[in-house]
Amino acid sequence: MSFRPILLAGSPIAGGRTPAVCAPLVGRTTAVLRDEARRVAALRPDMLEWRVDFFEAAEDRAALLEAAREVQAAAAGLPILFTRRSAREGGQPMTVSEAGMVERVEAVCASGLVQLVDWEIEGDAEGLQRVRGAAQRHGLPLLLSFHDFQRTPPAEVLRAKFQRAASLGADIAKIAVMPSSMEDVHTLLGATLEASRSLAIPVVSMAMGPLGAASRICGGVFGCALTFAVGAAASAPGQLPIADVRAALAMLERAGRAG
Amino acid sequence: MSFRPILLAGSPIAGGRTPAVCAPLVGRTTAVLRDEARRVAALRPDMLEWRVDFFEAAEDRAALLEAAREVQAAAAGLPILFTRRSAREGGQPMTVSEAGMVERVEAVCASGLVQLVDWEIEGDAEGLQRVRGAAQRHGLPLLLSFHDFQRTPPAEVLRAKFQRAASLGADIAKIAVMPSSMEDVHTLLGATLEASRSLAIPVVSMAMGPLGAASRICGGVFGCALTFAVGAAASAPGQLPIADVRAALAMLERAGRAG
Repeated sequence: MSFRPILLAGSPIAGGRTPAVCAPLVGRTTAVLRDEARRVAALRPDMLEWRVDFFEAAEDRAALLEAAREVQAAAAGLPILFTRRSAREGGQPMTVSEAGMVERVEAVCASGLVQLVDWEIEGDAEGLQRVRGAAQRHGLPLLLSFHDFQRTPPAEVLRAKFQRAASLGADIAKIAVMPSSMEDVHTLLGATLEASRSLAIPVVSMAMGPLGAASRICGGVFGCALTFAVGAAASAPGQLPIADVRAALAMLERAGRAG
Repeated sequence: MSFRPILLAGSPIAGGRTPAVCAPLVGRTTAVLRDEARRVAALRPDMLEWRVDFFEAAEDRAALLEAAREVQAAAAGLPILFTRRSAREGGQPMTVSEAGMVERVEAVCASGLVQLVDWEIEGDAEGLQRVRGAAQRHGLPLLLSFHDFQRTPPAEVLRAKFQRAASLGADIAKIAVMPSSMEDVHTLLGATLEASRSLAIPVVSMAMGPLGAASRICGGVFGCALTFAVGAAASAPGQLPIADVRAALAMLERAGRAG
């Protein structure tokens, strides 16, 4: 089976293999981030996600852009997904206002220092519109995301979230949920498979925590275009080391070819 | 999560880890089987499955029992699942009649040379009754199985097959299907999870072929108690090497503990 890969400037990342592997950066200071980016890039994920909500100096626009420059320089050519995860959806609390954050996303998009941008579908309509506009103006794929760290909504809600991301103009749709049973993990994989068939964009999903580990390995065969794996430090519960994920994906790929 | 492990003389195999790993033996002659058993046992699966339908001299009862002795001697203490897969369900054609096969299963059960026995739920009632009787008399767990090498029946049919195995007196219920899409693999995993909750016996399942590879790795977290992996030669399409399966299971186990 082959699912829709994430495109960057029209070319599929990770040579079109799905899922591609994305490693988070969660440094709190520029110095730590630079080191982290260098170390994680050396593990050769396909993408880095800079979780800017972990960054302490985000109030300071100049410091933020300087950090973006440092991350890019250390990323050794890997594409960078710029993500502000809201506290409401499992991110770190920030002092920057919502409007201030939108401005910062616009500035970072304009800087050319990142290659993709994440925004949450549950955010206010104006912010979303401005982020989408900035992504479009600067040619960055927009990943629209939904997270539930408490539960796994039923299949019809997951379907609606994927569709909502697409209808809001996402280039990539992402859902992360917390399972309380393997039935929840099964529901997430089913919704992912369905969305990967019905939507015209790549879809990304994961069931978090220990119960969801299989979704991070086998999600790809159910249509997931990107799996998050740990380089230096996890950004969400249940992320596995990059090397482990790579090994398992390579095995599944061999198995899928051979049979 | 923890699912029901396969019990042998009241003790869980593989230390209770699910899925346990079973490697098939498909040698056609006693000499080949002995070598195969020795080589495969050295790879330390948790169980060997002797697929007697591959064995050329099965007509000759004495030769069959001699082969069973050789396999046991070479198995280095690993439990042996004795399986006659019918041609109807994907096995090798045999000259032995159905009644003759039942007699041979009775003799092998009585020999003490194997530790578990497989029989197909779709076989005739009398044969099934006799095999069940032999398994009970000699204290061997009976695995009742259903295979479809052409397709994946819908969820309600899979549910009925699992239930039928249980109601026919299985100690372990097994279903193997051929998927034609990832939706089929998803259906199989869902039916497995459901049966693992609703039945009082361990359940085993796999989606065969390249599409089903993920079920052989991740089936365990969806309630599958046993996964089949290749030692020397595969007995069904899609089986992965023992070392690959072990590595992936170990990773999932770490992930399941850590989160």
